[in-house]
Amino acid sequence: MPAYSTNMRLKFPILALTLEIITIILFAVFVDYDDGKHGGHGAHNTTHHEEKKDPLTLYPMFQDVHVMIFIGFGFLMTFLKRYGFSSVGLNLLLAAFALQWGLIMQGLWHLDDGKIKVSIFKMINADFSTATVLISFGAVLGKTSPVQLLIMTILEITIFSINEHLVAEILEANDVGASMIIHAFGAYFGLAVARMLYRPALRNSHENDGSVYHSDLFAMIGTVFLWMFWPSFNSAIAESGTDQLMAVTNTYFSLAACVLSAYAVSSLVEHKGKLDMVHIQNATLAGGVAVGTCADMDIGPFGAMIIGFVAGIVSTLGFKFLTPILASNLGIQDTCGVHNLHGMPGILGGIAGIVAVLSFSHLCHSSLRSAAMQGAALASSLGFALVGGTITGLIMKLPFWGQPPDQNCFDDSIYWEEEGEESLAHGDQKAEA
Amino acid sequence: MPAYSTNMRLKFPILALTLEIITIILFAVFVDYDDGKHGGHGAHNTTHHEEKKDPLTLYPMFQDVHVMIFIGFGFLMTFLKRYGFSSVGLNLLLAAFALQWGLIMQGLWHLDDGKIKVSIFKMINADFSTATVLISFGAVLGKTSPVQLLIMTILEITIFSINEHLVAEILEANDVGASMIIHAFGAYFGLAVARMLYRPALRNSHENDGSVYHSDLFAMIGTVFLWMFWPSFNSAIAESGTDQLMAVTNTYFSLAACVLSAYAVSSLVEHKGKLDMVHIQNATLAGGVAVGTCADMDIGPFGAMIIGFVAGIVSTLGFKFLTPILASNLGIQDTCGVHNLHGMPGILGGIAGIVAVLSFSHLCHSSLRSAAMQGAALASSLGFALVGGTITGLIMKLPFWGQPPDQNCFDDSIYWEEEGEESLAHGDQKAEA
Amino acid sequence: MPAYSTNMRLKFPILALTLEIITIILFAVFVDYDDGKHGGHGAHNTTHHEEKKDPLTLYPMFQDVHVMIFIGFGFLMTFLKRYGFSSVGLNLLLAAFALQWGLIMQGLWHLDDGKIKVSIFKMINADFSTATVLISFGAVLGKTSPVQLLIMTILEITIFSINEHLVAEILEANDVGASMIIHAFGAYFGLAVARMLYRPALRNSHENDGSVYHSDLFAMIGTVFLWMFWPSFNSAIAESGTDQLMAVTNTYFSLAACVLSAYAVSSLVEHKGKLDMVHIQNATLAGGVAVGTCADMDIGPFGAMIIGFVAGIVSTLGFKFLTPILASNLGIQDTCGVHNLHGMPGILGGIAGIVAVLSFSHLCHSSLRSAAMQGAALASSLGFALVGGTITGLIMKLPFWGQPPDQNCFDDSIYWEEEGEESLAHGDQKAEA
Repeated sequence: MPAYSTNMRLKFPILALTLEIITIILFAVFVDYDDGKHGGHGAHNTTHHEEKKDPLTLYPMFQDVHVMIFIGFGFLMTFLKRYGFSSVGLNLLLAAFALQWGLIMQGLWHLDDGKIKVSIFKMINADFSTATVLISFGAVLGKTSPVQLLIMTILEITIFSINEHLVAEILEANDVGASMIIHAFGAYFGLAVARMLYRPALRNSHENDGSVYHSDLFAMIGTVFLWMFWPSFNSAIAESGTDQLMAVTNTYFSLAACVLSAYAVSSLVEHKGKLDMVHIQNATLAGGVAVGTCADMDIGPFGAMIIGFVAGIVSTLGFKFLTPILASNLGIQDTCGVHNLHGMPGILGGIAGIVAVLSFSHLCHSSLRSAAMQGAALASSLGFALVGGTITGLIMKLPFWGQPPDQNCFDDSIYWEEEGEESLAHGDQKAEA
Repeated sequence: MPAYSTNMRLKFPILALTLEIITIILFAVFVDYDDGKHGGHGAHNTTHHEEKKDPLTLYPMFQDVHVMIFIGFGFLMTFLKRYGFSSVGLNLLLAAFALQWGLIMQGLWHLDDGKIKVSIFKMINADFSTATVLISFGAVLGKTSPVQLLIMTILEITIFSINEHLVAEILEANDVGASMIIHAFGAYFGLAVARMLYRPALRNSHENDGSVYHSDLFAMIGTVFLWMFWPSFNSAIAESGTDQLMAVTNTYFSLAACVLSAYAVSSLVEHKGKLDMVHIQNATLAGGVAVGTCADMDIGPFGAMIIGFVAGIVSTLGFKFLTPILASNLGIQDTCGVHNLHGMPGILGGIAGIVAVLSFSHLCHSSLRSAAMQGAALASSLGFALVGGTITGLIMKLPFWGQPPDQNCFDDSIYWEEEGEESLAHGDQKAEA
Repeated sequence: MPAYSTNMRLKFPILALTLEIITIILFAVFVDYDDGKHGGHGAHNTTHHEEKKDPLTLYPMFQDVHVMIFIGFGFLMTFLKRYGFSSVGLNLLLAAFALQWGLIMQGLWHLDDGKIKVSIFKMINADFSTATVLISFGAVLGKTSPVQLLIMTILEITIFSINEHLVAEILEANDVGASMIIHAFGAYFGLAVARMLYRPALRNSHENDGSVYHSDLFAMIGTVFLWMFWPSFNSAIAESGTDQLMAVTNTYFSLAACVLSAYAVSSLVEHKGKLDMVHIQNATLAGGVAVGTCADMDIGPFGAMIIGFVAGIVSTLGFKFLTPILASNLGIQDTCGVHNLHGMPGILGGIAGIVAVLSFSHLCHSSLRSAAMQGAALASSLGFALVGGTITGLIMKLPFWGQPPDQNCFDDSIYWEEEGEESLAHGDQKAEA
């Protein structure tokens, strides 16, 4: 049955090389260095930051975000016992392509003398666009080929950049930490793809769909780096000064409160009050997601802590009770539980943003309109994600992209050369179609 | 025997949720963003830094310290073969609570219009207060329940903040890198707790009280991040400019010299001249501890190197010869050897500070008084640590905090759900009281 | 046969302590803090940066480079199944000594009132000099004793600093990201040493000369940190402002393009189109090496991407086809394949620098002379490396430095105490000469 071959020898190299060559050509035509001179147009945020004299002011923030993308997301997914190479390796591949593609897709909306002028600010935004793909990757982890994932990357980044433009420029909604346009978008996009790629045979748990002791420790590297640097994620593109300090502070305390509630609820719902690594690895981060939209608003440190506290509870309960229901009743097999880490906390963040804008109504005549725009931004992000993810999932389902057969899911050996006795002992002998 | 139950189902969630809710209420009453305007009071260091225009100037330093707290301390303790989940996981829990509690406890001494105004500087100090708890955690690692550890966190941070205020504001002693008020304090506090929790049954080595190959590699992640970012720890709250550069430089070279002496002595005292991972993981860091007090003084790079060189020797010899004696003769079972990494090098740092202050006597009339104040600061830190740790240990010894029975020490499976064959093979079947 | 003893009990401690004491004395004589005042001489780069007011401006860049040296290089080499302690542990030892020695060796060329005045800029350069040793370490990994490696460190840093001075001050060649003076130099130096230490008995693959599943994941920690922070490596000592932004941007995109081509070619040349971890761990970084020389030149983002794209292809092909030939035909056993990651991409970077300088000829009368100087810099780096490495290898071959016998190569247990069942199961019983 050659149509289902997982042999990537020709299709993967051809696709990867072609994409990169096209990207280089697009860069030759459209991309130049930021020379510090700007026309009068462009997003207000962008303009503000780029007026600064030292073009590297944002560089430490950029590097924090960079670590979240490549170490954070990459290692968070290494919890699977035999899928660590793919988790961190394909994360690197997808992110490396996505940041190039994202720079083009985002930049085309804001050409400056016909050029996209690369600054640290634009590099941060390119890394942000990458995050959506990596969130969706979590939903389909273990069940897709590198070719399928590259296709998802192209489509998701493209759709993301349309929604982002709509939310930021047309609706003028606030989403500094991107609860809606990255987290909710990435999660529901990935869930829609996962629904399209539903595999009935995986309803009964797959032997490799779980962790071992050391794989859970590798995943904690990802968790802790994400947790530490989330204040940078939520503040990197905030207005410098007090707004940026508020974004850092709110995120720092939201995450701290989230840890306590996630641990407490994990213990409460588990056998004999034990803690569950899945909750600790993921739900402790929900506070960063949920405080995103209103990170740079004057909600008070305690306001941020309430958001984080609630997010930790919602996320942990989601992992315990909702994920099994989604899989068994709706056919949505969400490998990493992105619905609990990014989906629900992202919506919570969007709602918190609406509430925050409304509660400032004594300060601002247009607050009702602003709240409506925040709501429209949330709806737009969810709509683009679900429709875009469904279409993308249908395309990914075409039978010639090398999708792994059910019995080879969650197993590096189908796409990676393995050497060494330890590996051989774990199932290199498995059949490959 | 229900009083000794390790089932945490009720007591841990209730304690964690209650603490977080109380903390949020305290934040609502006392904590606000730093608005950049200040009254005339407060520590001179604080005032100095907060006058800067960009409130995020210290942010990269803060993130380095943050990495030390969460990755550094967390992974350093993963060297135990079956206690990695607790090491990095409880480290995250305790630190997330401690930084909130520390911000309150430290801030109450310096209210500004009745408020604690959060700045990056205050976040760094909150992270610092956290370090004391994590050091003490190392002394009792593997032998305490999460409930006991949360209680220790509350008490230790509270006592720490009293001693810190006394040392910095009343004695006006210099301890920029906190050799005395964090390292010596945290170590002797933890040793006092460990003495109170003495377990005669663990005198003969426990089967899980040791490392395996990969657990030692995970621990090296912690070691290396601590080692790299220690210059940030010792300089983060120094006066900006030359003082801060000196703090960075002194720490950098002290650590480098310490590595050479730790390796040399490890080889000298071990079987056939081999190196011991315990020494490498810990004693290589002693130079950062010992240079802390005088990091921002003009001791010359070679002066810093001498301090680091001596610290590496003292620390390695401590691991080899002193730790076994403490355990067998004094009933102090110091799991991570914090006495060797933080205790003795911390005292060494305090003494180096006295010597440094005295040697500048031609520059300063009040140097004798200053030296006396440095000595008083060291004595105060040790006194508060030993008395505070003893009281805290007595409270932790009460029989209803879920302390693990001897046979389940150093074993994640008593507090963590485990899945996967590898785990099952290692002792999930163990009895739980 | 006592001359071949691998017992390090006396020789290693004596050497390490002696070196450190000599270094401290040299520091006492020659090294002082940077006070911000400078004479009129010194490298133009140096002067430029050090005129800045805040002496810590470069500190975040320094810390990124620091992470590359200690985490990046250290963990990249942990891919070997039983050599992780040595990889990350000896990396720490060698780097800690090298940065002290490098500061002296580089600083002696630029004395300021008879002193080397330490600044962050000089600390970055000291870390750079360290990189050459760590690259060479990769070539001889698993086959050398700590004593041999310390000897290599002294000699290599000394020779490096002569070549660096020649290239930067006499030839005035541009090599901001050090493709030539660090990467090509370190690689060919290491290969020359490896040639001298050729072991015919290792022609047939050694049982420990390979990876296991988790060792490959540890190595990915190194890979990803190197990949993320390479823009800092290539821009740290660039002129601040636009030049530095170009260096960051070019490196960022070169690396991104390199990932795509490395993955594609890995799949193309492997069995059934699978990916090979060796390629992913190493060849994805070749873009950072190759863009080094012209990182701060106006080659356009697409120009940088072409360099990275080619480097990824060359490097992957090198691992697949050239490394086996070097080992079997030339007697060069290159454990980590540094020829493919640093050697060929370094030369490629040098050539790209020549081409870039020539193509700017309409801007600059002296471009032909500049191109010739770039060529001379490349030739000088290769010449010093090959001659220096050969002499160093001959000295390292003397029979009393504790070199491991063939059967104990690639095995931590010969130089490290090991505890725990897992370790014991893997070969602690091996004979030691």
